[in-house]
Amino acid sequence: MPDQSSAAAAPQFPDPASLTIHVFPWIETPMGRFLGKGRVELLENIIEHGSISKAAKEMGMTYKKAWDLISSMNSQSAKPLVLTQTGGGGGGGAAVTDEGRLAISLYKGMKQRLEAFLKEENERLRAAMLG
Amino acid sequence: MPDQSSAAAAPQFPDPASLTIHVFPWIETPMGRFLGKGRVELLENIIEHGSISKAAKEMGMTYKKAWDLISSMNSQSAKPLVLTQTGGGGGGGAAVTDEGRLAISLYKGMKQRLEAFLKEENERLRAAMLG
Repeated sequence: MPDQSSAAAAPQFPDPASLTIHVFPWIETPMGRFLGKGRVELLENIIEHGSISKAAKEMGMTYKKAWDLISSMNSQSAKPLVLTQTGGGGGGGAAVTDEGRLAISLYKGMKQRLEAFLKEENERLRAAMLG
Repeated sequence: MPDQSSAAAAPQFPDPASLTIHVFPWIETPMGRFLGKGRVELLENIIEHGSISKAAKEMGMTYKKAWDLISSMNSQSAKPLVLTQTGGGGGGGAAVTDEGRLAISLYKGMKQRLEAFLKEENERLRAAMLG
């Protein structure tokens, strides 16, 4: 029969308004992961707290894990992203270098543009499924 | 003694040409993950082989895992993405519906545009670190 209701023809999905595209972005060198969400948050927390142990605590991360991430970043970079100072009553502090700050800013700029891209893609996806 | 005299004022990173942005994209509904790389590959393999078990084998995936993924997709959609036929000598076949084919095409279109976005971002990242 040629007669079809207008609703019947289009494929039916979940409510298009409920669909969301997510992405997990990261930056690699040939040695492996270099920068991702957690690493950038760690750098930002070191800037804020001036200490790896305080930054790790803030993130619910062990000191060892934080140190492994810093060590991985530093070893993949011509100049370190984080410098540590030994000694002192508080066990020494840590500082994020200019390279570290540039890394944060490059990652966050990319993330911001990615979010704008995803906003458009979400609209496109929902429109395609309503059509 | 390493010669650092040639170090310029600009922060030094790994060789910018070696940096690459990677992303893992997926689509969610409020019920959880709906579509991602593995699920879309599974749908494509079901189209190619007409069978869940053959599709799973092609991907080095257990039948149970494949079935769980299909079940998750079907349960999040108003109409199923995959239909199964029971019986027959080969244990029954499986078919990807129009909804399933639309899902593949929406995901792959998004992925393709995401890759174009990343190509630009990679160039931007490398340029920012050479500057």
